[in-house]
Amino acid sequence: MKKNMLSRRLLFKGAALAGAAIAAGTLSTPVLAQTARKVVDLTHAYDQHFPTFDGKPGIEFEWAAEIAKDGYQLHKLTIFEHTGTHIDAPLHFSADGASVDQLEPQKLVAPLVIIDITDRAKEDANTALEAADIERWISTNGEIPASALVALRSGWAAKVTTPAFRNDDAGKFAFPGFGKSATDLLQTLDTVAIGVDTLSLDPGNSADFAVHNSWLPAGRYGIEGLNNLEALPVKGATIIVGAPTHRGGTGGPARVLALV
Amino acid sequence: MKKNMLSRRLLFKGAALAGAAIAAGTLSTPVLAQTARKVVDLTHAYDQHFPTFDGKPGIEFEWAAEIAKDGYQLHKLTIFEHTGTHIDAPLHFSADGASVDQLEPQKLVAPLVIIDITDRAKEDANTALEAADIERWISTNGEIPASALVALRSGWAAKVTTPAFRNDDAGKFAFPGFGKSATDLLQTLDTVAIGVDTLSLDPGNSADFAVHNSWLPAGRYGIEGLNNLEALPVKGATIIVGAPTHRGGTGGPARVLALV
Repeated sequence: MKKNMLSRRLLFKGAALAGAAIAAGTLSTPVLAQTARKVVDLTHAYDQHFPTFDGKPGIEFEWAAEIAKDGYQLHKLTIFEHTGTHIDAPLHFSADGASVDQLEPQKLVAPLVIIDITDRAKEDANTALEAADIERWISTNGEIPASALVALRSGWAAKVTTPAFRNDDAGKFAFPGFGKSATDLLQTLDTVAIGVDTLSLDPGNSADFAVHNSWLPAGRYGIEGLNNLEALPVKGATIIVGAPTHRGGTGGPARVLALV
Repeated sequence: MKKNMLSRRLLFKGAALAGAAIAAGTLSTPVLAQTARKVVDLTHAYDQHFPTFDGKPGIEFEWAAEIAKDGYQLHKLTIFEHTGTHIDAPLHFSADGASVDQLEPQKLVAPLVIIDITDRAKEDANTALEAADIERWISTNGEIPASALVALRSGWAAKVTTPAFRNDDAGKFAFPGFGKSATDLLQTLDTVAIGVDTLSLDPGNSADFAVHNSWLPAGRYGIEGLNNLEALPVKGATIIVGAPTHRGGTGGPARVLALV
C-alpha cells in the first residue's frame, strides 16, 4: 500500500470528524461511538514474582498498618515503575519527554487494533511485528481507526508464570516485539500508542531498543505486559488505559481494560 | 420515599435486564449503553506534597536508572497504598475482605451518580451526605441506575493544594463525607461503590469511621480524592476505575476517568 494512499484517507477522515464535531456542537471527537456489553481485563495481577526486565522483584510489600493493632490495614509498597502490566511514557526514553501524568486523558481511551502474530511466534520467539503485518491487517480489516492503540498479540500472556515469558532454554531474552518498520509506519498514521503482551516493546533479541528509542521520544506511549488479548476481536474494542498519575513518572503499573 | 417502593423498582429493573440479556444472547448486562464524546479525568496528579490522612508523604521518588548513564530512566517509588486519588478495597477494613486485585472488572465500569452538597459544605466543613440526600436525588433525577457508583461532590477538590483540604483553622480534620444512613440505604440498592472528592469516605469529624467499617466489610469499594466532578452532569456519565492489581493490596492509587 502506498503512503500517499494513507495520507488521502487520513485527510478524508479528518474532514469527516470535523463535520461530526460541528454537528454535535462540540470540538471533541467521539471517544466511544458504541455501546459496550462486556469489560475485558487486559491487566495481570502481579507481585514480587512477576517477571521483570532486569530479573529483580518489581514490587515489594510491607505492612504499614494492621487490623489487629490499628483497626484497618494498608501496605507500604516499593515499586519499580516498569513492573506488571504497565505504561511507558515518553520520559522513559527521553530526558524531556512527557511524564506519565502529562499524557492527555483523551489518549487513554482508544480504539484497539490487535495484530496477531501467534503462529509465527511459535516458530520464532523473537519474531517482530513489521510494517507488512500492519499493511496486511489493513487489507483485511480496513483502515486503522483514528487515534488507535495498536497491540501485537503473540500468545505470550499465557507464559507469564513460566521462565519462557522472558527467556529461551539457553537463558537469553526471547519474546516477540515491534520492529521499527512497524512503528515508523504507525508514526505516519493517527495512532496514540502501541501495546505488547510481552516484556518489552522491542523483541527479546533487540540489540538497540530501536522502538523504545524512536517511538517514545516521538511523544507516543507504549503498554507492556498486556493480558487477555485473546478474548477480544482484532477490531471493534475500545481500550482504556488507567495510567498512574505520580508527578514526573516515567511510567508505571496501569489498569488496562477493554470494552467490547 | 418508602423502602418497598425501591424494592419493587429493583425487581422490575432486574426482570428488564434479564430480558435484554436473553435477547442479546449473552448473560452480560450492558456496561455502557451510550456513546461518549469526552473523557473527563477524575484523578489528581500527586507527589510527596499531596495531602494524606496521616500527614506523612504518601509517595517518595528515587531514580533507579538515569538517561545519561543508562540510556533510559525510571524511578523506584515508595507508595503508601491510600495516597492520591485512590481506591479502598474491602480488605482495607476487613481481615478477610476482597483485595484490590480481586474486584470484578465489571464493577470498575459503572454509571456515575453525583450528589452535590457543595452549598452545605461551605457552611459546615464536616457535613455528611445522608439518606435524605439520596432520596432527594432520586425524586429529582429518577432511580439510581443499576450497578452505580455514587459520588458526593462537595467542592473539596479545589482545595487540594491548601491546608483546608484536610484541616480547619484549628488544625482539626474537617471535610465532608458519607453518613452511615446514606451507605446503609445504598447497600439495599444495586450499587457497586461510593466516591468522595475529599480525604476520606467518612467526614473529618467522624469518631468511629462508621462508613469505612460497614461499607467496605460488606464487600463494596470506595474511591477517595476524586477530582473534576464539577465537569460532569449529576447523571449520565460512566465512571471507569483504573484500580491497581498488586496481589493482596488493600487499595492504592487509581486512574479514574469518566466518559460523558
